[in-house]
Amino acid sequence: MKKLAIGIDIGGINTAFGLVDDEGTVYAEYVVSTKKYPRFDDYQPYVEELCGAIKTMLGTVSFDFELTGIGIGAPNANYHTGTIEHPANLWKFTEANAGCDESLRVFHLAADIGRRFPGVEVLMTNDANAATIGEMVYGNARGMKDFVMVTLGTGLGSGFVANGEMIYGHDGFAGEFGHVVVRPGGRKCGCGRRGCLEAYVSATGIKRTAFELMAEMTEPSELRGIAYDDFDSAMVSAAADKGDPVALEAFRVTGEMLGKALADMVVITSPEAVFLFGGLAKAGDKIFEPTKRYMEQNMLSVFKNKVRILPSGIEGKNAAILGAAALIWQHRRA
Amino acid sequence: MKKLAIGIDIGGINTAFGLVDDEGTVYAEYVVSTKKYPRFDDYQPYVEELCGAIKTMLGTVSFDFELTGIGIGAPNANYHTGTIEHPANLWKFTEANAGCDESLRVFHLAADIGRRFPGVEVLMTNDANAATIGEMVYGNARGMKDFVMVTLGTGLGSGFVANGEMIYGHDGFAGEFGHVVVRPGGRKCGCGRRGCLEAYVSATGIKRTAFELMAEMTEPSELRGIAYDDFDSAMVSAAADKGDPVALEAFRVTGEMLGKALADMVVITSPEAVFLFGGLAKAGDKIFEPTKRYMEQNMLSVFKNKVRILPSGIEGKNAAILGAAALIWQHRRA
Repeated sequence: MKKLAIGIDIGGINTAFGLVDDEGTVYAEYVVSTKKYPRFDDYQPYVEELCGAIKTMLGTVSFDFELTGIGIGAPNANYHTGTIEHPANLWKFTEANAGCDESLRVFHLAADIGRRFPGVEVLMTNDANAATIGEMVYGNARGMKDFVMVTLGTGLGSGFVANGEMIYGHDGFAGEFGHVVVRPGGRKCGCGRRGCLEAYVSATGIKRTAFELMAEMTEPSELRGIAYDDFDSAMVSAAADKGDPVALEAFRVTGEMLGKALADMVVITSPEAVFLFGGLAKAGDKIFEPTKRYMEQNMLSVFKNKVRILPSGIEGKNAAILGAAALIWQHRRA
Repeated sequence: MKKLAIGIDIGGINTAFGLVDDEGTVYAEYVVSTKKYPRFDDYQPYVEELCGAIKTMLGTVSFDFELTGIGIGAPNANYHTGTIEHPANLWKFTEANAGCDESLRVFHLAADIGRRFPGVEVLMTNDANAATIGEMVYGNARGMKDFVMVTLGTGLGSGFVANGEMIYGHDGFAGEFGHVVVRPGGRKCGCGRRGCLEAYVSATGIKRTAFELMAEMTEPSELRGIAYDDFDSAMVSAAADKGDPVALEAFRVTGEMLGKALADMVVITSPEAVFLFGGLAKAGDKIFEPTKRYMEQNMLSVFKNKVRILPSGIEGKNAAILGAAALIWQHRRA
């Protein structure tokens, strides 16, 4: 009988999920709103709707199959405990809970879903780790034992694989490469500290860099006509394609920051390859070329010309669902 | 029958080796000179003498035992290939080899020893990784799945364990935490680059810091009476114990550099503990206190108060031999 896994990708706006086999074919795909359930008290109704929708989806499949497991990628997810801990943008306290202890905002999602699907294994990790496992199971990291995935979205996420296994770390939260401090005392980061890599290397980071460069440089630029609040990182990419000097410099600076940070990371885990995934990675050579160049320039000699910087092989709209489902296939192999 | 392993520690001056059981008891211990064989052409005679001495040692044991394997800790050792690659201080080219390709300086030591002990497994890794495995098998990391070992000697070595396994990396050289660049454009490092952690945090690093501080500070200090060439890091420790202001500041600065670098490393592998080993670690609270304090001050909030900084449990004269022998026990467990 065909074996299928469910992959669930929980974002701040939507929760997308699908039924996937071990080769990456998606047999059904659904979406429920996450945004509809913003408050702390909305968590249980959210779980109800999600599990109801999963059961509806399972009912639409016209052939016999075995459900091998449910994999979930979610922000602040802890692999060891199956919990989502203190998420910044999910199930927040409002006036009604004012004064409640933040320690209550630990959501046992894996167990809560598992209870509604008896006998089905439920595994959860953060979205970047899920993408990493997706790359290992379905993408360009197939067969690799030691690699790193860098996801360049609004922030910078990452996943580290060593000896063929995800590094979850002792507490289940390993792989926060975006929060390596690359410029002490530098830009304010969403984490409350200053100078983190993701404040420079991410969609938001390159936007901030473009604004810094507009102040620093005197060359004309089409970016100078756009207000900060109307600006997004795709505009930097479009301008760079037309030779815009500020946009080109923004990519060079971003690649320099990432390349140097990768050179420092390589000495720790010595990966075979680093995969770049997400919006900023779609800029192609504009980001890959300076990243490679500055990584090699700053590399400890023993690692020079050994580490490849490669595009993700699962880039596309199903990547997050595939990644979450891959948690199940990877776990069954191990 | 008693099972024993041989642990070999290759240093620039001496090669120490011993016969060890899986509980860390050393039944015999020998030393041969490494320094006596400095040149490229000395490698084969060195191997001959070493293997001869090992056979002599084995002959002295008065009870029956099974030799389970030979573990080696050596500079620039590659675990995957069993080779020592381009060591800075071993088997160097001299005038006689002038013009020879440096690629010849790859020494297949594991195979060369294995040939002389048919049927015996020979494993090799660098000295810091061997110490790490020693900590895992015999020391304070017993039972830990995710930890980091930092060895503070002339330089700064390190070993990373995740999911209960050493991270050797794709090329076999992972774990070079001493070569994370913590101060871009900073002090010259032995690796040819600038600003590496080991140029600040090591016996040599704290000595360099003390000299920088003697220039910067105006307070009297007993260290001001000692020339650079006569100075060693133990003098900083002795002076600090007497309240010397320059020496105390040198430890604070060293702990600050290490603590901040650890905060950046923790986000990647999320270890349960970081062990400090070697000369500088023997300074105790003088180095542990500022290291902990600055690590916590600079830590991403999710990791705060989770990571312990602990002393090594194998510190002492046999640590290097135990670590090398532990390679064998660890491999047989896996």
